[in-house]
Amino acid sequence: MITSPSNATIKRFAKLHQKKYREKESLMIIEGPHLVDIARFKGLIHTVFTLDESTESNTVQVSEMVMKKLTKTNHVPPIAAVAKIPKRHTVSSKVLILEHVQDPGNVGTLIRTALAFGFGTVVLDQSADPYSAKVLRSTQGAIFDITLLEMSVMDFKNTYPKHTLIGTDLNGQSTGKKPVEPYALILGNEGQGMKESTQKQCNVLLKIPIKNIDSLNVGIAGGILMHALANTDTPDLKL
Amino acid sequence: MITSPSNATIKRFAKLHQKKYREKESLMIIEGPHLVDIARFKGLIHTVFTLDESTESNTVQVSEMVMKKLTKTNHVPPIAAVAKIPKRHTVSSKVLILEHVQDPGNVGTLIRTALAFGFGTVVLDQSADPYSAKVLRSTQGAIFDITLLEMSVMDFKNTYPKHTLIGTDLNGQSTGKKPVEPYALILGNEGQGMKESTQKQCNVLLKIPIKNIDSLNVGIAGGILMHALANTDTPDLKL
Repeated sequence: MITSPSNATIKRFAKLHQKKYREKESLMIIEGPHLVDIARFKGLIHTVFTLDESTESNTVQVSEMVMKKLTKTNHVPPIAAVAKIPKRHTVSSKVLILEHVQDPGNVGTLIRTALAFGFGTVVLDQSADPYSAKVLRSTQGAIFDITLLEMSVMDFKNTYPKHTLIGTDLNGQSTGKKPVEPYALILGNEGQGMKESTQKQCNVLLKIPIKNIDSLNVGIAGGILMHALANTDTPDLKL
Repeated sequence: MITSPSNATIKRFAKLHQKKYREKESLMIIEGPHLVDIARFKGLIHTVFTLDESTESNTVQVSEMVMKKLTKTNHVPPIAAVAKIPKRHTVSSKVLILEHVQDPGNVGTLIRTALAFGFGTVVLDQSADPYSAKVLRSTQGAIFDITLLEMSVMDFKNTYPKHTLIGTDLNGQSTGKKPVEPYALILGNEGQGMKESTQKQCNVLLKIPIKNIDSLNVGIAGGILMHALANTDTPDLKL
């Protein structure tokens, strides 16, 4: 049992809260039985940490103080783990791109929703770090089944030129033909929306008809658009 | 300028963080320039508190310590206000009912989304308190334009028997005819979904087709369903 937060292993793993160490080690910290179970099932576990005694392999019992240092949450979880960051490089025919989406909850929920509607790749252009604790919690495990890439919209367009780019236009109206795969749906920043320069690169622009308020939460807008793209079989994408 | 958190007025208003005092006084605390501006526009301001000097009426300058006591946020806002809780009792022909939705962010986002799709009434059945700081922040001001009622699904059904009840069924399939107004869409708890006893009361059940994961975030599911109900003009509600 490890009881000291100054233990060398604990100090090394606690550094995984910082992005540069996650990238260097290709490891991340996950919290709670649900995420740990999924990571175990996927063969991605490096080391499991529990408050209770355990006879499982690769499992270390730790004190509450150590668990607190590892997880940095207000409510110390009974179990956490250091897990390998899954490496996937195959880009799917339906892609979601998040451009400057800042809120970890929004990024996590959008990753989960993308998976639900068959968008197998999420591209992050200067958005919240997908392997941070808050994002991991919101993905509910979807992180293990999705290809995550960090690159700009322009780099994506240059690398995958066959993907039709679908943007949103809050002030305009839906323009362009209903896209056929491969395509990439781009969602913009919570406050500013999509960058104008990005909008100009899009082949299709979509607008969700709303009233009374200026805009929808980016997660909600993304959910509605991905649902519509995944399930509309009419020749026009009627929003 | 009020500099002491023990000031009688400040102590009285700080109590508005508790639900029972909000109900007793019909007042709530709102934070940040956006919400204060809307409340001012709607004529719902009781007292404004600012860190900077101000010549506006009903405005009191306070110290940072006092602002902290009033708002209970990590980042002390430059402006906050005590505002009247709007009283509306007219139930709209499209209603959203939240049954045991616990997360303040979900409740706030759903209130904002309801307003965007013309659901003018949100009924809260043992859900997160709509006038708490976190919910107010997520509503982005929609709280001022919506009728909020706290009552159980059964009480709603008995009081408004003409509203068709629409439920969700994650495991089944969509059943029942496309509803005509008046109707009420019911969303259930984040973990458990809708109560089985509530599901049995529903005239229509809807299922959103998803793959790879078990369920959507309740905010996302609500957004997709309200969008579909508000915008589908085909005889069948195709999800």
